[in-house]
Amino acid sequence: MESKAKVLIDCQDAKGLVYKISKVFYDKDLNIDNNREFVDKEAEKFFMRTVVTGKFEPKELADELTRVLPSNADLRVITPRRKKIVLLVTKESHALGDILIRHADGELEADIEAVIGNHNILEELVRRFDVPFFHIPTEGFSREEHEEHVMRMIDELCFDYIVLAKYMRILTPSFVQRYEKKIINIHHSFLPAFIGANPYKQAYERGVKIIGATAHFVTDDLDEGPIIAQDVIPVNHRLSWQEMQRAGRDGEKIVLSRALNLVLNDRVFVHGNKTIVF
Amino acid sequence: MESKAKVLIDCQDAKGLVYKISKVFYDKDLNIDNNREFVDKEAEKFFMRTVVTGKFEPKELADELTRVLPSNADLRVITPRRKKIVLLVTKESHALGDILIRHADGELEADIEAVIGNHNILEELVRRFDVPFFHIPTEGFSREEHEEHVMRMIDELCFDYIVLAKYMRILTPSFVQRYEKKIINIHHSFLPAFIGANPYKQAYERGVKIIGATAHFVTDDLDEGPIIAQDVIPVNHRLSWQEMQRAGRDGEKIVLSRALNLVLNDRVFVHGNKTIVF
Amino acid sequence: MESKAKVLIDCQDAKGLVYKISKVFYDKDLNIDNNREFVDKEAEKFFMRTVVTGKFEPKELADELTRVLPSNADLRVITPRRKKIVLLVTKESHALGDILIRHADGELEADIEAVIGNHNILEELVRRFDVPFFHIPTEGFSREEHEEHVMRMIDELCFDYIVLAKYMRILTPSFVQRYEKKIINIHHSFLPAFIGANPYKQAYERGVKIIGATAHFVTDDLDEGPIIAQDVIPVNHRLSWQEMQRAGRDGEKIVLSRALNLVLNDRVFVHGNKTIVF
Amino acid sequence: MESKAKVLIDCQDAKGLVYKISKVFYDKDLNIDNNREFVDKEAEKFFMRTVVTGKFEPKELADELTRVLPSNADLRVITPRRKKIVLLVTKESHALGDILIRHADGELEADIEAVIGNHNILEELVRRFDVPFFHIPTEGFSREEHEEHVMRMIDELCFDYIVLAKYMRILTPSFVQRYEKKIINIHHSFLPAFIGANPYKQAYERGVKIIGATAHFVTDDLDEGPIIAQDVIPVNHRLSWQEMQRAGRDGEKIVLSRALNLVLNDRVFVHGNKTIVF
Repeated sequence: MESKAKVLIDCQDAKGLVYKISKVFYDKDLNIDNNREFVDKEAEKFFMRTVVTGKFEPKELADELTRVLPSNADLRVITPRRKKIVLLVTKESHALGDILIRHADGELEADIEAVIGNHNILEELVRRFDVPFFHIPTEGFSREEHEEHVMRMIDELCFDYIVLAKYMRILTPSFVQRYEKKIINIHHSFLPAFIGANPYKQAYERGVKIIGATAHFVTDDLDEGPIIAQDVIPVNHRLSWQEMQRAGRDGEKIVLSRALNLVLNDRVFVHGNKTIVF
Repeated sequence: MESKAKVLIDCQDAKGLVYKISKVFYDKDLNIDNNREFVDKEAEKFFMRTVVTGKFEPKELADELTRVLPSNADLRVITPRRKKIVLLVTKESHALGDILIRHADGELEADIEAVIGNHNILEELVRRFDVPFFHIPTEGFSREEHEEHVMRMIDELCFDYIVLAKYMRILTPSFVQRYEKKIINIHHSFLPAFIGANPYKQAYERGVKIIGATAHFVTDDLDEGPIIAQDVIPVNHRLSWQEMQRAGRDGEKIVLSRALNLVLNDRVFVHGNKTIVF
Repeated sequence: MESKAKVLIDCQDAKGLVYKISKVFYDKDLNIDNNREFVDKEAEKFFMRTVVTGKFEPKELADELTRVLPSNADLRVITPRRKKIVLLVTKESHALGDILIRHADGELEADIEAVIGNHNILEELVRRFDVPFFHIPTEGFSREEHEEHVMRMIDELCFDYIVLAKYMRILTPSFVQRYEKKIINIHHSFLPAFIGANPYKQAYERGVKIIGATAHFVTDDLDEGPIIAQDVIPVNHRLSWQEMQRAGRDGEKIVLSRALNLVLNDRVFVHGNKTIVF
Repeated sequence: MESKAKVLIDCQDAKGLVYKISKVFYDKDLNIDNNREFVDKEAEKFFMRTVVTGKFEPKELADELTRVLPSNADLRVITPRRKKIVLLVTKESHALGDILIRHADGELEADIEAVIGNHNILEELVRRFDVPFFHIPTEGFSREEHEEHVMRMIDELCFDYIVLAKYMRILTPSFVQRYEKKIINIHHSFLPAFIGANPYKQAYERGVKIIGATAHFVTDDLDEGPIIAQDVIPVNHRLSWQEMQRAGRDGEKIVLSRALNLVLNDRVFVHGNKTIVF
């Protein structure tokens, strides 16, 4: 029976890697559907993403590849499996709505396990799509207590990625570390410009002629994680910061969905504070 | 005889300004070729740029307009006159070259009085276009002494604007204040991201997916002056910072020339730390 | 009591128009919140959009303006009123979904009266938002008969604009003429490139490096109506036409929503086969 | 002694190609500096561009690769060599000027053998850069006779590519066929929109909101050759077609230089009427 897998390799660079890897595929009579590599010469790192088809046992393929790769290689042989995501939201609906619509028409390559909101404003929208919504209020709780509630909820769910679809709470290091490389955020500016609160107001006050949006993995440092995708929108002196905010939403939702799609397709390698996007 | 003028008004907002101003034009039987206004409601400021043609005495027109404008209005009646610019350069030729070519084919709406370089590398290129080049070396001089030489040279020249076409020296406050609102710089990043030295290296290290260029008026605060124009260029993980730098040059020269063209056409109002661009 | 109105003027150009119009506003003690004009010199046409506030009777204001305008001027004094739209759809959900989400969160400045589909695939999505969906099937009917059914349905509804949100049927001249300047379409290419069927396949076969989307008013000539907004998305040789189509959807929905927003805000003048967008 | 070569392969797709090719590199102890492949599944074609370094004889490397490639493979082993270009121009200087500046500062990876103009307007500019300029006038000659003169001149020169830097003459099929895949043109529109004469006027009359520029290889069919690069510039109703033309020039020169750079770096494969750009 024909199988299909994405082979992802992230390892120390070495001579002959392409040869050795492609020899494994060739010896096992696999077809290469798609192949992309990148060598970061400064860091001496090798990245490869290959889609193979043929008759093979994923475990066996992984073992044979491991034999030819440098030690400490990060190898993943990913067979087709529908991924799952959990969304965290606050009050704004545009990023969430875009994902819900894509989910509803089958374009999103993942199932939405649940949406968790620190407000309940978006519950109605989420329920329209028959997706579970959990309201975890912040009132009466410290930041740590509230996050504890969120983590307990998340840990009961099955998921591959947590998507912050305009979740307007700052996460603590313990949250971020618990879900390392699994949290994707949309920041409403062209990072690293306008880190922090109300970037549109900052952009308005600075008088920029272009605003942007940035989707990135979340790390300890606020708005400093590896960038997956960015986009920009031209503005001018006629726009108030509220109008910039409105104009910027289109960029935010498109960039988040594009980044999410890349991640769900296993096209993104995290490499220090950067990404390799194939 | 038919005259033509650009009327630029920057004043406190007040009721009936458009009526009163257009009444002056109407009473003098002038044609409005082009008209744009903007009211900054927050600051309660009114900006207007009108191109008028007809039979009129500019001084008289200014007087009549002054009569209907709020006190302290900044009014300029600009009759057609070829402007002059002085360029400051260091070693990179792309921004300078773009301006020289536009100058040579008549597209630049100004004459280049001179190019001043703190290195003499670009002298050959400038001489090819029969433009005076002055080399004011930095070796053996303090920053203040060197700038003193540059200012003395500039003050002997006739100019409307000083264009920093990749001039890689930081200007002192006394230089900046002496030529207030007259210095245009191209910064090789999407400001306010990557202020300061080597923004391409900073951009590379941050792993951004888009780089940019920003043309702005120079003020005391490094890279903080009013932005005139910006543009962006997509990049990816495959580019070294040197390759980003090379890719970014196209953006730099285009943005600088576009901003220069706007300024030379009297289309830019400076308003605090922002610009109104008509 | 304070009133507010958008004054839209489209007339033959003449000397003193700005003066005469602003005099009417001034004499009635109105505030100008926002004002934009444009003169098409070739066509000798004058366009103006002014937002005024103050104490006034719209009918009276219109009468006084009419007195100072050239004969045959097209004058509209539009007081705040929530507009209504009808959507026509086929099978694709992205453009419809984007409008439904904006509608649900209050960002769309109109109510959706109904969605009419020639298929019933999108009924479920529309019903999730408590918006009426009418399925008018094509099977067993000639193009004319089917359109007759659609027109009968539309005529029973109250609406300002008909939005073709990926409605994949060609409209007959009688339909188009009946709703002149009221039908907005999104064409999935950068018009005038790739007119007609399957523009993504055409784009793929031509090997373009950028694809686009165009929102326009519908006229008799297929895909030839006045363009309201356009946007582009970079592509490359690695994309199949189906992948171009998927990538292009983001552009389509954003451009359609942006155009719709402009039209609903009365910012678009139709001028021959072009638009003036303020 | 260390050598370096770009290996370009364009052949029928087959199983194990990557393995067989990388085995040749591995057996010869070569380093892969950079590698990109693409398989066009529809056409069953394989494209690969690899930069290798090491100790090797190019002829030998080519022979060994030929042995493992399908018959009829198009294989090129390109060792470092400065390329040469010939420019054809008419009256406009922006595209020519951009290339001359890049040439002068060492950014262009080619030498300019000569510039040939059907007018002599640009002679002065070209001579400023000590580049030979040949004026081949059209007056008194038929299209065929004029082209005969141009071809005779070109054939005496040594060149890799002919660049039409705003050469406003239509080439005959015999000219195009003589220099197949060697002629690069910049068309001043977003092809395939506005084929033919005065695309800016066409764009103006159509009322588009975005204009573009397209660099492509020249084939028999006017403006129908394989596209190498495209870019766009936003416009609006305020621009006359002459202003669109002026705004468009920036796009034209940047796109032409970018395309030229890709071609000079052997990054472009022609595949039917399309390009693969690595």
